[in-house]
Amino acid sequence: MKTLENFRIVLVEPQHPGNIGAAARAMKAMGLSDLALVAPRSFPHADASARAAGADDVLQAATCLDTLAEAVADCQLVVGASARARRLAWQNLDPRQAAQEACATAGKVAMVFGRERSGLRNDELDLCHRHLMIPANPEYASLNLAAAVQVVCYELRMAALGEQVPAQSSVGEQVELARVEDIEGFYTHLQEVLVASEFLDPEKPRKLMRRLRRLYNRAELETTEVNILRGILTALDPRKSQS
Amino acid sequence: MKTLENFRIVLVEPQHPGNIGAAARAMKAMGLSDLALVAPRSFPHADASARAAGADDVLQAATCLDTLAEAVADCQLVVGASARARRLAWQNLDPRQAAQEACATAGKVAMVFGRERSGLRNDELDLCHRHLMIPANPEYASLNLAAAVQVVCYELRMAALGEQVPAQSSVGEQVELARVEDIEGFYTHLQEVLVASEFLDPEKPRKLMRRLRRLYNRAELETTEVNILRGILTALDPRKSQS
Repeated sequence: MKTLENFRIVLVEPQHPGNIGAAARAMKAMGLSDLALVAPRSFPHADASARAAGADDVLQAATCLDTLAEAVADCQLVVGASARARRLAWQNLDPRQAAQEACATAGKVAMVFGRERSGLRNDELDLCHRHLMIPANPEYASLNLAAAVQVVCYELRMAALGEQVPAQSSVGEQVELARVEDIEGFYTHLQEVLVASEFLDPEKPRKLMRRLRRLYNRAELETTEVNILRGILTALDPRKSQS
Repeated sequence: MKTLENFRIVLVEPQHPGNIGAAARAMKAMGLSDLALVAPRSFPHADASARAAGADDVLQAATCLDTLAEAVADCQLVVGASARARRLAWQNLDPRQAAQEACATAGKVAMVFGRERSGLRNDELDLCHRHLMIPANPEYASLNLAAAVQVVCYELRMAALGEQVPAQSSVGEQVELARVEDIEGFYTHLQEVLVASEFLDPEKPRKLMRRLRRLYNRAELETTEVNILRGILTALDPRKSQS
């Protein structure tokens, strides 16, 4: 896994200290820790600490700088977040593309976010190698600053985890899928009980049994489940109560 | 593009009204508008409106309900967010997989988020067809509620915009997935018959019913199949033969 320590989040002139805290929390939850603040209006601040919840370590390690140029001086790739398409046809990436490019870069990568209201200035965007746009609702593209940081950090984590993300389940207890002959035994049992109850016409059992097979095959029955289902069939078998 | 109106965000017992507002803002920025609140502690509330910024229309249209079952009654697919892996190996999806599945579903889809501190209870997770886990830092998996909603809404938007993602299945006849209230009716019926047959101890029905729910939820029952299963239950009901 690409080390997430190579990714830096840069906030340029954040106005609300609460947003700095919420951004730190979003970073830490996604495994990032390198936060740089360019001329924050109020920092440190109680609101920042409150919203950071358990991510105060990220806040405490944050560096404060006067200009964006200083904040990204040691970076190989600088990606600037932009709320709207710019005049010049710069290369706009969505967060997923930006994260892939970040992961493919050897050195430090900075993801830069502008002021809550006005974003990044043109001279700041010019410092960036790539522009990033979160594909938002054109009628209401108003993402909260920390929410934008959350989305980008999430994509960085997803890209860094890469193929190692355990597809589908695999979390939790190990399950044993039933063997075909056990499942066939269940279908035979089911058909017998359905015929005995007169729900199924023994002359033409095909269609109903096919539908039921389709249902249970789709579920990919486990051994324990086949045992439960057969226990239920035995308990409900009308022949039992007649004997 | 798959219409984002088919997606509902459900917040179960949110404790901080500010989080409701921030969730509404996250939704609107991603083009979603259907918000359901289950027993919110304080709503409406000034903090909710403040954090919603320009998304008060989403707040005003939000529905308040007493139980999760009511909030998802008309949904074809219900995905529950879970912060940790559960004992039973339920099918865990990451937000991207969940969004793809949501887009491949014809009817209403609910994405369900639990309480800030404690998440969803087991009986609430049992109502869900799929479980969703945001792949977070194992040492600090503390996503803010609105941040989690933001990530999921972002993936829903990306999937809806993408559409090039080939939906699974889509081959063969068009099927109508059963609605949650129909499936719940089946579970109630199943439990009654199992108790009547003495297969299920009415004093402690939980574990067996959870296993059976897990099996049938995994199969994503169609309306026709629910009807067949209930027909079978009626035919096998031991109370019938006694009458």
